[in-house]
Amino acid sequence: MHLYIAYKNYSSWSLRPWLAMKVAGIPFAETLLPFAHGNSLKQFSEQHGLPAQVPVLIVEDLVIWDSLAILEYLAECYPERQLWPESGALRALARSAAAEMHSGFNALRSQFPMNCRTEKAVAPSDAVTQELQRLAEIWARFEQADKPKGPFLAGEFSNVDAMFAPVMWRVRNYGLTVSPAFDRWVQAMYDLPAMQEWLASARAETWQMPSYER
Amino acid sequence: MHLYIAYKNYSSWSLRPWLAMKVAGIPFAETLLPFAHGNSLKQFSEQHGLPAQVPVLIVEDLVIWDSLAILEYLAECYPERQLWPESGALRALARSAAAEMHSGFNALRSQFPMNCRTEKAVAPSDAVTQELQRLAEIWARFEQADKPKGPFLAGEFSNVDAMFAPVMWRVRNYGLTVSPAFDRWVQAMYDLPAMQEWLASARAETWQMPSYER
Repeated sequence: MHLYIAYKNYSSWSLRPWLAMKVAGIPFAETLLPFAHGNSLKQFSEQHGLPAQVPVLIVEDLVIWDSLAILEYLAECYPERQLWPESGALRALARSAAAEMHSGFNALRSQFPMNCRTEKAVAPSDAVTQELQRLAEIWARFEQADKPKGPFLAGEFSNVDAMFAPVMWRVRNYGLTVSPAFDRWVQAMYDLPAMQEWLASARAETWQMPSYER
Repeated sequence: MHLYIAYKNYSSWSLRPWLAMKVAGIPFAETLLPFAHGNSLKQFSEQHGLPAQVPVLIVEDLVIWDSLAILEYLAECYPERQLWPESGALRALARSAAAEMHSGFNALRSQFPMNCRTEKAVAPSDAVTQELQRLAEIWARFEQADKPKGPFLAGEFSNVDAMFAPVMWRVRNYGLTVSPAFDRWVQAMYDLPAMQEWLASARAETWQMPSYER
């Protein structure tokens, strides 16, 4: 398996499958394709008949080009790692939240691009404040769900945590407020050895993207 | 199972799981919650702690609130209906395309809202033209895939056809051009008895949404 990603400091979509694979202990090779410095992403995308976007997972002849599709593929290939919760009801809840993240939270994503290196308090717009309230509702729904013990959304780490992983950085690094349950999740996600490995790589990168600074 | 949807004429997201359930022969009750006439959707959403969006599938205590999460749930509950292709490689391809639709094609969705009743040629913007080219690329990728016989993306009807179902109406009813392979798929989708049932209901609706007319 070969995962193609972009800047660790900035590429929120790249973080999702990378983190899931690291936490689940799935071995993979990775290649970083900067999307704004040089044209390696453009060349890669043209070669594979894809939009110039990451992440892309390549497994022999198979090309999987969306973060959620990659997470579903990993869950199927490694059922023993339980990348989706074992309970059908909890799995449906996790997939609902993951899909809402996949196509939503546009105000948060626009005002607060992921930037692992920056820590700075910035006031959220009204639209972002509404989305932060929606995050609190989602976290409350998981709190009330019948689930295994553990600090992650469905108890144990699963694909839904991977989908929201960049939101951890956005909320934490810009001093946003969601809920106490969300704060506990932020800490658990931040403390993951895999997340610390990602952060160390992000800090070591020298590419600068002014449009991602707030 | 109880599926909550909005206007059949206009609600592209509603069409997706409704069509999959009809084609797969999955029995369900349905309730239409108009999002712009009266406040039934608002009341429903507040009652369930959800954004004011459809579709929502409710199965006893379980609430599934996103079209893609619903399609995954159906595929799991009814494995014999093969709502995802049986081949792992074809399934990963279908999920990649379905996920790209789930979070993308914003220019097409914005310039050409789904409107089953209207037939009228409208020139696409440059951004839409690029997205139509991307649709042709996706259709070509499926054409080249190893798959069962059949007129749908992965041969037999599957969740990826459900995800693109509203695009059938957009391209067909506004006279847009994608590719010959896409045209064959449009015809197969239009001819589905379930799609004709949806169209008959859309035509019978009396709600008017001027913002969905082009």
